[in-house]
Amino acid sequence: MSKGPVQSIDELGEFGLIDHLTRDIKKYQDSTLKGVGDDAAVIDFGETCQVVTTDLLIEGIHFDLMYTPLTHLGYKSVVVNISDVFSMNAVPRQVTVSVAISGKFSVEAMEQFYEGVNMACKQYGVDLVGGDTSSSVTGFMVSVTALGTAKKDDIVYRDGAELNNLVCVTGDLGAAYMGLQVLEREKRVFEEDSTIQPDLEDYAYVVGRFLKPEMPFETLAKLREYGIRATSMIDISDGLSSELLHICRSSDCGVVIYQDKIPIAKEVVAAAGEFQIEPLIPVLNGGEDYEMLFTVPLSEHDKVVNIPNVSIIGNITGHKGTAIMMTNEGNAIALQAQGWQAYDGEQ
Amino acid sequence: MSKGPVQSIDELGEFGLIDHLTRDIKKYQDSTLKGVGDDAAVIDFGETCQVVTTDLLIEGIHFDLMYTPLTHLGYKSVVVNISDVFSMNAVPRQVTVSVAISGKFSVEAMEQFYEGVNMACKQYGVDLVGGDTSSSVTGFMVSVTALGTAKKDDIVYRDGAELNNLVCVTGDLGAAYMGLQVLEREKRVFEEDSTIQPDLEDYAYVVGRFLKPEMPFETLAKLREYGIRATSMIDISDGLSSELLHICRSSDCGVVIYQDKIPIAKEVVAAAGEFQIEPLIPVLNGGEDYEMLFTVPLSEHDKVVNIPNVSIIGNITGHKGTAIMMTNEGNAIALQAQGWQAYDGEQ
Repeated sequence: MSKGPVQSIDELGEFGLIDHLTRDIKKYQDSTLKGVGDDAAVIDFGETCQVVTTDLLIEGIHFDLMYTPLTHLGYKSVVVNISDVFSMNAVPRQVTVSVAISGKFSVEAMEQFYEGVNMACKQYGVDLVGGDTSSSVTGFMVSVTALGTAKKDDIVYRDGAELNNLVCVTGDLGAAYMGLQVLEREKRVFEEDSTIQPDLEDYAYVVGRFLKPEMPFETLAKLREYGIRATSMIDISDGLSSELLHICRSSDCGVVIYQDKIPIAKEVVAAAGEFQIEPLIPVLNGGEDYEMLFTVPLSEHDKVVNIPNVSIIGNITGHKGTAIMMTNEGNAIALQAQGWQAYDGEQ
Repeated sequence: MSKGPVQSIDELGEFGLIDHLTRDIKKYQDSTLKGVGDDAAVIDFGETCQVVTTDLLIEGIHFDLMYTPLTHLGYKSVVVNISDVFSMNAVPRQVTVSVAISGKFSVEAMEQFYEGVNMACKQYGVDLVGGDTSSSVTGFMVSVTALGTAKKDDIVYRDGAELNNLVCVTGDLGAAYMGLQVLEREKRVFEEDSTIQPDLEDYAYVVGRFLKPEMPFETLAKLREYGIRATSMIDISDGLSSELLHICRSSDCGVVIYQDKIPIAKEVVAAAGEFQIEPLIPVLNGGEDYEMLFTVPLSEHDKVVNIPNVSIIGNITGHKGTAIMMTNEGNAIALQAQGWQAYDGEQ
């Protein structure tokens, strides 16, 4: 297929690889309304549509079992997938969960993992309807597919943001990344001296946000209750900058956000201070917050400001493909997608 | 959850583990008609139902890249999944394909894999609608979810086999296993002396069946054309014995098959002779044939015998849970599910 020299995946980059691999995709089924390119695919079933999304979680890449209890891993595996269902403005209904494990894991370990899966299913009312279990040569791997439904007109894609739309986020950002930093630090301490037990009490909020993310489904329900329809939406899995650029790219627009409007929990500021990290770093490039980023028409301003847990952080501009943050000092900074670290590209 | 001592997964066994992990599953969605326990889950969309199935393919467990071209791997990854859609008597419509790869793979390697995926999608008219790509610590891992549709009344489960039903299979059995033996032998030869290039010409049939399985969809279409509705159906992925026992267990019945009725290609007999293997071994316990095993009412006998590519190999009995093979010498042999080898349990 490629006529050029062999490229490494690192050279091509995440977006580049996905674009490259999916450029020749053909469509054979009329029922496929949306394939690759949003948080989830959309399949037509008449009045109702189904959204379909899938994610891999790989030991050593996405999680470290040294500080991730298997129950939490099971819970999180479901939640990060139904996050993509919520971000299509759909309701999650079913999941399949596949697991590959090396011989070192016991039946009890598998029980703990599935206990977490079942807890998440109960919390969000979704059914575990299938999966596959396999041995692996090394490590623990999870693959989840989540299925949800919505009325066709209710589905919100990434590509609907329009000039002057308000840019909003749910909850607060950066906590999961700081939780990860705390856990990584405790791991290093433990590796140096295994008699020292971690004391995570002071970091309960940030660690909890990392290990056990929850969906802002009550906030999304409030939006519906107020009759507000988002013009675009995406879940914040890779950090705010990356998600803003996804919206810009898909909606062929630009965006400006304001530093002082970005919701950051005091626990994030405290932890960032301790780690001597600028608190904006986890917010913009941290990821794993699983809050929602969405745009609404300017006319909805007065309604949106009354919804708890929603922050208006900026607006859509005509500067295509450009995401700008106005700092508290009045400087305009161009936001970049996070650097190429662990390669992890959802299609 | 478990009160007993820690058990290893090997001790519990494949069926045992799946039963164990799925025994507490609750159902929250009315639309879930069938969850874990058949070839695919079934989701209600009114007149139409959707079937959902997922499979993992792990390097070193399910495939060996030393003799599996990535294009073939991509093709096979799709086919083995839509096989579970066909075995529900449904039509495959969409697939998601997720891949985890270690750093040693190039973009060209990924292109080859996706070329195979796209070829299978074209062959069976299914759309690639999503997936996930991730780095892995080691090896190549594929997770595919296949979605299909059928009218509610057309769906065929494992649990509908009834006394005196005819037991039928499509195509011929055992070829994929013999293909694998040939490839493993050539690998050993190559490892001993890398100047010797494999000559697979004499084994094209069996190797082809292993590397590039195809669905008997024309045969299934003929069944529909003749107005024959299977009472139960399952795809033969784990060997005939294992699949017969699945039917017996789900349908609460027994089965008797006749050795002289089992379709075995002459290439399988030849290869088995060369490897000094009894040809029944790959047939009964080999797996990966991806033919269909199904039951039909006795009254359909005269129609079924006229369908090319279908063999009537036995009938359903009242000896619950018992699968018997009558040998050519008139002996009754109790069939066993294949031994516990690579742990691979589809739910």
